[in-house]
Amino acid sequence: MSVMRMIDLIYKKRNGAEHSPEEIRFIVNGIAEKSIPDYQLAAWCMAVYFQGMSPREARNLAIEMSVSGETVDLSAIPGVKIDKHSTGGVGDKVSLVLAPLVAAAGAPVCKMSGRGLGHTGGTIDKLESIPGFKTEIPKEDLFRQVKEVGIGLVGQTGNLVPADKYLYALRDVTCTVESIPLIAASIMSKKLAGGADGYVLDVKVGNGAFMKDLEEAKSLAELMVSIGKGAGKKCMAVLTGMDQPLGHAIGNALEVQEAIAALKGQGPGDLMEVSLTLGAQMLILAGIEEEEAAARNRLEQMIADGAAWRTFEKWVSAQGGEVSAIRDEALLPTAPIQLPVVSRNAGYVAYLDTEGLGMLAGRLGAGRASKDDCIDHRVGLIIRKKLGDPVKEGEVLAEVHARTMQEAQAAAESLYNLVIVSAIHQPAPPLIYGYII
Amino acid sequence: MSVMRMIDLIYKKRNGAEHSPEEIRFIVNGIAEKSIPDYQLAAWCMAVYFQGMSPREARNLAIEMSVSGETVDLSAIPGVKIDKHSTGGVGDKVSLVLAPLVAAAGAPVCKMSGRGLGHTGGTIDKLESIPGFKTEIPKEDLFRQVKEVGIGLVGQTGNLVPADKYLYALRDVTCTVESIPLIAASIMSKKLAGGADGYVLDVKVGNGAFMKDLEEAKSLAELMVSIGKGAGKKCMAVLTGMDQPLGHAIGNALEVQEAIAALKGQGPGDLMEVSLTLGAQMLILAGIEEEEAAARNRLEQMIADGAAWRTFEKWVSAQGGEVSAIRDEALLPTAPIQLPVVSRNAGYVAYLDTEGLGMLAGRLGAGRASKDDCIDHRVGLIIRKKLGDPVKEGEVLAEVHARTMQEAQAAAESLYNLVIVSAIHQPAPPLIYGYII
Repeated sequence: MSVMRMIDLIYKKRNGAEHSPEEIRFIVNGIAEKSIPDYQLAAWCMAVYFQGMSPREARNLAIEMSVSGETVDLSAIPGVKIDKHSTGGVGDKVSLVLAPLVAAAGAPVCKMSGRGLGHTGGTIDKLESIPGFKTEIPKEDLFRQVKEVGIGLVGQTGNLVPADKYLYALRDVTCTVESIPLIAASIMSKKLAGGADGYVLDVKVGNGAFMKDLEEAKSLAELMVSIGKGAGKKCMAVLTGMDQPLGHAIGNALEVQEAIAALKGQGPGDLMEVSLTLGAQMLILAGIEEEEAAARNRLEQMIADGAAWRTFEKWVSAQGGEVSAIRDEALLPTAPIQLPVVSRNAGYVAYLDTEGLGMLAGRLGAGRASKDDCIDHRVGLIIRKKLGDPVKEGEVLAEVHARTMQEAQAAAESLYNLVIVSAIHQPAPPLIYGYII
Repeated sequence: MSVMRMIDLIYKKRNGAEHSPEEIRFIVNGIAEKSIPDYQLAAWCMAVYFQGMSPREARNLAIEMSVSGETVDLSAIPGVKIDKHSTGGVGDKVSLVLAPLVAAAGAPVCKMSGRGLGHTGGTIDKLESIPGFKTEIPKEDLFRQVKEVGIGLVGQTGNLVPADKYLYALRDVTCTVESIPLIAASIMSKKLAGGADGYVLDVKVGNGAFMKDLEEAKSLAELMVSIGKGAGKKCMAVLTGMDQPLGHAIGNALEVQEAIAALKGQGPGDLMEVSLTLGAQMLILAGIEEEEAAARNRLEQMIADGAAWRTFEKWVSAQGGEVSAIRDEALLPTAPIQLPVVSRNAGYVAYLDTEGLGMLAGRLGAGRASKDDCIDHRVGLIIRKKLGDPVKEGEVLAEVHARTMQEAQAAAESLYNLVIVSAIHQPAPPLIYGYII
């Protein structure tokens, strides 16, 4: 038997050939054991960027990375555990709505969520806006909580997917992040390590998403679904629009407020629609409903009769959060300055620079530029006018929630470059582009 | 002024954009100062492999690398110094013939040459077959020798082109050697650092060359000439065939013998032709002749009247070599075993695996597998029959010069797979494919 060498695998990939399962295992083991030098991994990643990967290669890469460290075993929790994953957007508070919604409908939710980085927020950061909310819970307590309340949501713990962490950090500094098979394998390796029985993937597309282009988003979604199914899991994806923020609120406590409204049936239409669409698919994968219409009905019922809201209250309480703060929004953290930004002209909202809005909220303190930055839960933006909305001169376009008047005014000025009001009315882009099953 | 970052340059190259001169300088300085991590350089090299480089980028890369360390100043030597460079072939002893030939014709030769690696030999190794020949000479002595004898040829010394050395070593382990702009910039950086006023480039093409394909060889030649001219030097290239060894001899002392014959006008036709072709171009670039025909006549005269041979004798003597050994070939190192290999069938030589012949000579001891190996000057191959030659059954195809009968017999057996005699006569491929000026 000849010894496998990374140089030969770089050569193979550079020339467009497909790696065998053994070759993918060799690479992932080499990453985990640090036996492959970074320069060879970097060259290989760039070769993958140009030559791509077959679905089989991407699946093997995801599976091998998923078992490169600890894995979560959810089998002690009864029922079919379906996880939802979003590829990341601006104002995406869907997880806060979905978890109590599907839990109320009978689907257990036990997941790990991330913190925000770059222009997108993170579910853990948002939940920590609620005074007292804890996201570090011992495993035994977490499992008991899922059985009792239906939901457990914690920050990423343990040495999960170390090969993915290492490879992602290297890709980040070698300009090889934007490779669809590497993105798909990275996301799915983390999902597979999380131990759920199935996944509903929310693949965002638009100027506020990592995928700006529908065809690329579709390729990513197809590949992720193929990886999930190839790993023996239930899996489907929904392509959803991210050419504008989801809902109105961008920023941690502001998004919690909007999620609370949604759980009471008073959320913005787009947030309700995405939550119901994804939630219905979760109920179907969990085996609770067979048809989408029935699944939606069940979820709408959970909102109408208050079950979703009560589940949210129980969940917050179980994880140490102050229930008074979600009952009375005045008790959530509030920014000292709330500055309305009014339109300088009349017309229709023609363009929202969604990524720019996410970055702006981040600069106000809602996000992190680097991993160790602290965030301010109070600050952010409320985007009052959405794509296609008519706007009068002097009408409020948005509100800036800031720590100081100076920061608020600077943000307000930036907003005029991010929210474009034009004389020509264009219809809003689709919210749901389609399903990949 | 914004700070330049390697990650942005990888991004730029990955997306097919052209680097500015400042960006190329940043990269080369970063290599020389080791301030750019290997993984970023590796990713950049792979991006260059896929996206290529403009002639301007390759020129800037060559120039910046050429001044990354020490450089040679030949201005103390009178006359126009023209250097010849071969991209490497099997049996390529042209430098041994050319140096005394053009020196006799009035063109001073002062150059650094390399040692052999892989399947090709090196001029320094060949010259060291001559007992006593020294290739380490102090600079002052070297310059005086060039003035007195017309030739000085030494091994590579000093800290020349450290950026190229570093980058080449990294390319070697990241599968990014085979990039035409990186090859061209690497070769030309070394040439430019060598300080000549002009370059005649012998770009080999065929199954014994690094470039197997005529179009690729042409691209490489064009790019190298463009780099040379762009750096303000005289420069031209000749594309020459390497689908069979040049001449008959492969191996160090054997090639010295063949070069001696050529200097006396008795060399094989292909060796004479390539030497005269390149030599004529050297005389033209040196300003000694204007027309090729006149330049060739002058060189042929130098052979006919013995001036080339006398210059060779003076050169060998000046560098400490025993003149008796080049006057009486029996005094050159000779292998103990000389085994003729006879044809097992009649027909014509249809195929010579030239790279394979180079490797076989190397395995006999004529070459190195790694940098620190010792070589045996005595051993090698004499290929008696060349492409298109008629062969009778039992006629000698080649001779193996070996250290032991066992090694000779093993090599002889290998030769039958490398020299193919077939019933169908095919004409020999071109020797000179063309000029790039």
